[in-house]
Amino acid sequence: MQENAKLLIDQDLAHIWHPCTQMKDHEVIPLIPIRRGEGAYLFDFDDNSYIDAVSSWWVNLFGHCNPYINQKIKEQVDTLEHVIFAGFTHEPIIKLSKRLCEITPPGLSKCFYADNGSSAIEVALKMSFQYHKNRGEKRPFFVSLENSYHGETIGALSVGDVKLYKEVFEGILIQTLQTPVPENQTEEAAEVAAKALETLLNERGYEISALIIEPLVQCAGGMHMYHPLYISLARSLCDKHGIHLIADEIAVGFGRTGTMFACEQAGVSPDFMALSKGLTGGYLPLSVVLTTNEIYDAFYCDYHELKSFLHSHSYTGNPLACCAANAALDIFENEHIIEKNREKIAFIKVQLERFKALACVKEVRQTGMIAAVELHQKDTQRRVNLEIFQYALSKGVLLRPLGNVVYFMPPYILTCKEIEMMMDAAYEAIVSLKDF
Amino acid sequence: MQENAKLLIDQDLAHIWHPCTQMKDHEVIPLIPIRRGEGAYLFDFDDNSYIDAVSSWWVNLFGHCNPYINQKIKEQVDTLEHVIFAGFTHEPIIKLSKRLCEITPPGLSKCFYADNGSSAIEVALKMSFQYHKNRGEKRPFFVSLENSYHGETIGALSVGDVKLYKEVFEGILIQTLQTPVPENQTEEAAEVAAKALETLLNERGYEISALIIEPLVQCAGGMHMYHPLYISLARSLCDKHGIHLIADEIAVGFGRTGTMFACEQAGVSPDFMALSKGLTGGYLPLSVVLTTNEIYDAFYCDYHELKSFLHSHSYTGNPLACCAANAALDIFENEHIIEKNREKIAFIKVQLERFKALACVKEVRQTGMIAAVELHQKDTQRRVNLEIFQYALSKGVLLRPLGNVVYFMPPYILTCKEIEMMMDAAYEAIVSLKDF
Repeated sequence: MQENAKLLIDQDLAHIWHPCTQMKDHEVIPLIPIRRGEGAYLFDFDDNSYIDAVSSWWVNLFGHCNPYINQKIKEQVDTLEHVIFAGFTHEPIIKLSKRLCEITPPGLSKCFYADNGSSAIEVALKMSFQYHKNRGEKRPFFVSLENSYHGETIGALSVGDVKLYKEVFEGILIQTLQTPVPENQTEEAAEVAAKALETLLNERGYEISALIIEPLVQCAGGMHMYHPLYISLARSLCDKHGIHLIADEIAVGFGRTGTMFACEQAGVSPDFMALSKGLTGGYLPLSVVLTTNEIYDAFYCDYHELKSFLHSHSYTGNPLACCAANAALDIFENEHIIEKNREKIAFIKVQLERFKALACVKEVRQTGMIAAVELHQKDTQRRVNLEIFQYALSKGVLLRPLGNVVYFMPPYILTCKEIEMMMDAAYEAIVSLKDF
Repeated sequence: MQENAKLLIDQDLAHIWHPCTQMKDHEVIPLIPIRRGEGAYLFDFDDNSYIDAVSSWWVNLFGHCNPYINQKIKEQVDTLEHVIFAGFTHEPIIKLSKRLCEITPPGLSKCFYADNGSSAIEVALKMSFQYHKNRGEKRPFFVSLENSYHGETIGALSVGDVKLYKEVFEGILIQTLQTPVPENQTEEAAEVAAKALETLLNERGYEISALIIEPLVQCAGGMHMYHPLYISLARSLCDKHGIHLIADEIAVGFGRTGTMFACEQAGVSPDFMALSKGLTGGYLPLSVVLTTNEIYDAFYCDYHELKSFLHSHSYTGNPLACCAANAALDIFENEHIIEKNREKIAFIKVQLERFKALACVKEVRQTGMIAAVELHQKDTQRRVNLEIFQYALSKGVLLRPLGNVVYFMPPYILTCKEIEMMMDAAYEAIVSLKDF
């Protein structure tokens, strides 16, 4: 390894605490300093390249250092890097908001911005709660799906249900309700889960502000997938009880599920849709909650009525991030990405077949550009994910399995050849597992 | 007004819900589309200029579209725009973290990153709680100061105490404890408030994880200021009870109070220091929590012990934001900003004198580069802040009073001449208030 890289690793470990990481792991698994990015590849200081098969935590869509997005950012930084977004506005965000309202499901007409997915979830939860409050109802509960993940801030974590992230914080979370997620991708499973939701809402609907779901794929929850039918059944049940439906499309939005937004596959308009990650094409932190005019109107009044939604973050509506988002939408439009991805989705489907033949594979599943190979869990103490991570890395592919689920969520610029390389690395990594 | 600007305003109001805004206000107070920024000035579509006297929500330090920072961002975007920050790392963040550990109070040795101030507060709260949990203690309470503001996500809002932001959300907040803030900038007030803290900690110290404070200035709480003595007294009391001290320097850090960090004036090292806003010079959302090796070590263990801090945000450690932060620190160093600001601080002090003579002025106060003129509150229904905002704007100055507190928190590049213009606009705005 280059001397420079070694020095960087030492300095990193001396001063940095990495997210979602047991830092002691780095005693045996070396941190990798990345020198540059180009297209689907990340390059280390020895110029080894890695296909970014996880889109750097599901954010990158059109490659690293995309020349078109780069050019737009350079122009924006010379014009307006940032301005306070209360009382003032700017062209990039107006353009972006108009476009987001046009491409999201019908009825979503207003954009409220934040900086990351967690904050967007907090905005949606607070807005839903205050909507009911503004109308004279106190509904202090939120319902989420079992096995769900919605972020890490205390509100977002409270509506999550992945024990690994949540359990240790019992005592400083708010109380929420969970309802079963459909067990698999069949219509039957969707109906069973909807029945459970119906029972819960019949009992406690009057005290519930909103149901929050990750439509079609629970990403952090091991890429668990379910049928669109559940979303439409949930929509009807929410309507019956005056409960909002919050669609957390932070991970699944922007084409990941095959359609621009996952809700489209159910023909459903949620009351709130939270977006982030792919929103800026993987460049900069930005999130947005889209909502309806009906909800907006419940806060629109004379100031002294005290019904305003007084939430803010300093960098709300940052022009550089909005510029990146507009550039990403330009690429979607100009290069017909959703159409072009269909071929890749079909190719991934074919490539997944070979995994089904492996004895250690429990299930193979796919929703659009997201694919997952779930291995049988044999020894809960064995960290198979790290073994696969390291093996794939040695083959030039960045995989980052979630427990025993090997998944693929690549940038859309991957060629079929590169998709095959990515799947080869995963296949070989699984086959190479000793005594498994 | 330019046709283009009118169209932008219409499109904005059709699609955007602004932060911390009663949107109905825009029926009478026009939104202002900003076309470009340059130095301390924002320019609208008619090329009217406005001195950004609030640093665009307290973030901007060295002017809009600063040529040096711009150049650095352009270079970075061509190298590496973003990479996953678990398992991987990059040069800009290593450089930044090393520098932050060097310039913050002694003992702060590890950097954990997030995207906005609220998320940084959530990180500090969760880390503090889990630290005690990892050591076998359950301490579910946090203490904050009365009149404090720490952000808008549910955890951050729960430790806040500004009723305007918090009250409507009672029912979905976690329970926290408040203790009096020193009433004014005297040492006596600091001692009285510390006494109250002592009483609280003697009673409930065993169930408290951390005390969180905004050192020296409660910014959103009307620029309320207090003596550094309180910080050192609070530090001792926390030590006595094994309680962490969290310093929220999101607004006051990076030279706002005259020293690089406010805690320096008390000679105190907190257990956690949260930074954001000025961190990137006002360019991009980024936040960081600095903490000690002792706290880091309480999470450092074999993975299966389940003591890891599994918090993350997708864009944690974004290289573009880190690059802007490094560029801002370069300017601090190369241009000796803290030293140079001393002259401006003295000039502001002189300029503030004339406000004291006004009958409607209740108090004038200053801490470093932050100055405030508090008006007597006569008619709580009258929105004096909007009257002053609009008057100052007509004079080419962006002021944004907090209720009846007119304040100044300008970028450091303002010349004395421009500081005088800014203060003139405020003075005239106050004098011009009818029947006040």
